[in-house]
Order: sequence, then C-alpha cells, then structure tokens
Amino acid sequence: MSSERPLILLTNDDGISAKGIRCLYEEMIKIGEVIIIAPDSPQSAMGHAITISKPLRLERSYLFNGSEAYACSGTPVDCVKLGIYEILGRKPDLIVSGINHGANTSTNVLYSGTMSAAVEGAMEGIRSIGFSLCSFDTDADFSVAKDVVRKVATNVLKNEMPERVCLNVNIPYGKSVNVKGIRVCNQAHGFWEDSFDKRFDQFNKPYYWLTGDFLNQDTAENTDLYWIEKGYASIVPTQFDMTAYDAINEIKSWSL
Amino acid sequence: MSSERPLILLTNDDGISAKGIRCLYEEMIKIGEVIIIAPDSPQSAMGHAITISKPLRLERSYLFNGSEAYACSGTPVDCVKLGIYEILGRKPDLIVSGINHGANTSTNVLYSGTMSAAVEGAMEGIRSIGFSLCSFDTDADFSVAKDVVRKVATNVLKNEMPERVCLNVNIPYGKSVNVKGIRVCNQAHGFWEDSFDKRFDQFNKPYYWLTGDFLNQDTAENTDLYWIEKGYASIVPTQFDMTAYDAINEIKSWSL
Repeated sequence: MSSERPLILLTNDDGISAKGIRCLYEEMIKIGEVIIIAPDSPQSAMGHAITISKPLRLERSYLFNGSEAYACSGTPVDCVKLGIYEILGRKPDLIVSGINHGANTSTNVLYSGTMSAAVEGAMEGIRSIGFSLCSFDTDADFSVAKDVVRKVATNVLKNEMPERVCLNVNIPYGKSVNVKGIRVCNQAHGFWEDSFDKRFDQFNKPYYWLTGDFLNQDTAENTDLYWIEKGYASIVPTQFDMTAYDAINEIKSWSL
Repeated sequence: MSSERPLILLTNDDGISAKGIRCLYEEMIKIGEVIIIAPDSPQSAMGHAITISKPLRLERSYLFNGSEAYACSGTPVDCVKLGIYEILGRKPDLIVSGINHGANTSTNVLYSGTMSAAVEGAMEGIRSIGFSLCSFDTDADFSVAKDVVRKVATNVLKNEMPERVCLNVNIPYGKSVNVKGIRVCNQAHGFWEDSFDKRFDQFNKPYYWLTGDFLNQDTAENTDLYWIEKGYASIVPTQFDMTAYDAINEIKSWSL
C-alpha cells in the first residue's frame, strides 16, 4: 500500500449487496485504498438517524476482493461513525456514499441515508460525496455514472473542499440519456404530495403504506432538478448549518 | 369547537408517554384545538427518517383527556405525514413538537426526531416549532419551559412565519437557572467526539454502543449554545434548503 494513495471510506443506504456500491467500489479502487462499511440491509429514507437504543453489529464481508469490508446492522450515519472511530481509528481522506438507487435531488436530501452519510462526513471535516443515479431500478445500468463519479472524486481530492460542505451528486438516467456534462447548482424546492395506502390485516385492523408523488414547483433555472431534466449531472454543495440567517431579524421583531 | 381556535398537531420523538409532550399539551390546549400523533415508543435520534419498508400502525390513545390522540409505530416525521394526509385530511394551523428531553442545540438539529418533525411541517408550509429542554432527566421539571412555550407559540400564530422556515427552541435547565429571556440566534458549530463502547456477547462476538462527548468549538457570540449557557432560551430559525450557496462559485472553478 503506497502512502500516496488516499484512504477512501465507502458506504451507502441501499445495503452492502446493492449494485450501486459495487459500481462505486470499482471506480474508487482505481484511485485509492478502499474500506467498505455499509448497512447489512436496505436503509433508504433513514435520513440522519443514528442507533442509540440498541447495540450495533459489524460483520466482515468478503464481497470486495481484497478490500476490508464490513456489513453493519445500523444506519448509513452509524457506518460512518463506526468507520472513523472504531475500524479506522482515524479520519479517511474521502468518504463516498452510494451510488444510490434513485434520485436524491431537491428536498430528498433530507430523507436520504446516502446523503446523510456524506453530511456526517462533512461534520467530521472529511471530504465527502454522495452519488445517486436517477433510477429506482435495482438492476439499472450504473456504468453510465462512472465518468461522473471518477471526475468528481478526483476533483474533490485535488481541490480544497469548502469548509463544512459535502457534495450531493445526481446523475441522470434513461434509455436515451447521455450525460451531457456536470452543473453546480442549488437544491430545488420540490416536495412530496404524500398519501397513504390504507389496508386491513387478518384481524381487520388498519395499517398504512406511505406513498405519494413528488412535485416540483420550482421554476428557477439553476436547480438540481432543472439540470437533471436537461440531461446533466448535478452537484449541490450541501451544508449542515440549517440556520435560516435571513429570518433572524424578522423574528427578532416579534414580541418575545 | 370554535372555528376561531387554531388546529394544533402535537408530536415528539420521546414517545407519547413522555413527560415533555404532556407539558406541551397542557399549554397548547389553552390556545387551540389539539390533536396528538406521537410515536408509540422512543424515537430519539431518528432524524428525518421515514418508514417505507414496513407498514405503519396507528392506535387510539386515551391519555389526553378529551383530545383525539394516536400512538404511531413510526418516526416523528411519519407522525406528521399521517397526521396531515390520513387523520386530519388537511393541514393544521400549527405543528408543535416536543418538549424534547434533552437539548437540540447546534448540530443536534440534524439527528433530532423532534426537530425533524418541525422541519417536515415547514416543508408542508405549516407553521412549526420544535421545543427542547436542556436536560436528559426523564423526570425533569418541565414547568420551567411553559412560559417560553406559550410565548413562542402565540407569537408564531399571530405573526407571519418566514417562508420555508421552522423554529428550533431550546430552553435552559438547571437547579439555579431562571430563564432570563429569549434570544433569536444561529446554530452553533459544535460536534460529537464519538466513541464506541465495545462489548462481547455470550458467544464472544462484539457489539457496539454509540457514546461520546459533545464539543463546542464555536466562539461566536450569537449562537444557541452561547445563549443557553447564559441562561436564555434560544430560537434558531431553521430551514430545509441545505444548499451551501457560498460554495457554488468555488466548485464551479474546478475542472468538471
């Protein structure tokens, strides 16, 4: 192992057996030493959840050729924390999360376990990237993402990452889509128009499945949804300071 | 029921039986019609997680006098979604979440189920507030929070809430603490210095408990941690647009 090769921590939220993390691994092993710590089962939509009320388990995985790999019983953020503080005992040079099966554009960044792993990396001061392919097909052709993954990861390693920021990278997908380029932009203001599919069990008691449609009412041009629609990969620099600075003075004027 | 009284949806992440939500209920019932939809068990640190891989359950709860109440098998964000789209069939006038057992200052906002419920409310365009008491004692005296809760909630109802913003309210706690006032401020840049307590089960296989210390390295004056330390309640206007706008131009200069 050359000391020149960066140490890369790889995780995701679709689980260690997913196709997307395999594709990401194949690209990352070309540019660094890779260690994989990923959930042992799907953890989509777990957001920034961490496991505090039950213990975590780590099992060695032998699915990644010679690379050290672990399947973790927890969430993507748990994987990052275990990686840094238990397995590596130091901060890796880069955290890459994904490639997610499905878009993490717009407000989906808040629900996404894949992106929360990258945000956790930023909180630790580590260069971090979340990659997502805009297809929910578990058997999608992830090779279309490889050029973008390599280009973004190598840029992140050779440039200074802005402080307290990680990258949310989405890659368009479709039969006739050729990725036209990469655009740096902001999170669109879309949202889920939720509904619940109410069913009844064998005792005639109700249960509910969350469902719904994603709506984009953002007509601004430089958003992630705008560029994905046009066939470009999008990069949203993403921060964990959620303060609405513009609102501070307005609220100060209330009778508090 | 007077049509003048606002409809208030109440939730939390400590679970429907917690002391904090009882205190919040007692204040909210004075100013509006209240419906409670809260997790049936503790959901602390669940962040913005939603339940998509198993169905959700709702059980009627009779713990809140005459008010309609449900215990939900899901996360705080699930509670908000079920409340709006399944139980109420319309958007409430106000969502209040808490009172959380423990501070949600600084970067804890990202891990907090209590605050994620409020953020979800903001995403729905509903006035939303998360309240937290800076004590992890499950039997803490929540009455010290009542003045702040009432003052903030009535202000939110009578003023225009800034668009796409909710409030993260933390209330100081301690033997000799009298809440000196309320300060509108920004999220401090603190972080968790994590560690894991590694133990071995009866088969001598390891398991891990997440632990650690919270560190504040933010010396700025107008942060939530700064004001809490000085005995003030803090309000951080909190947004769900996580774009790091300042970083866009810098990343555009890379060789992408």
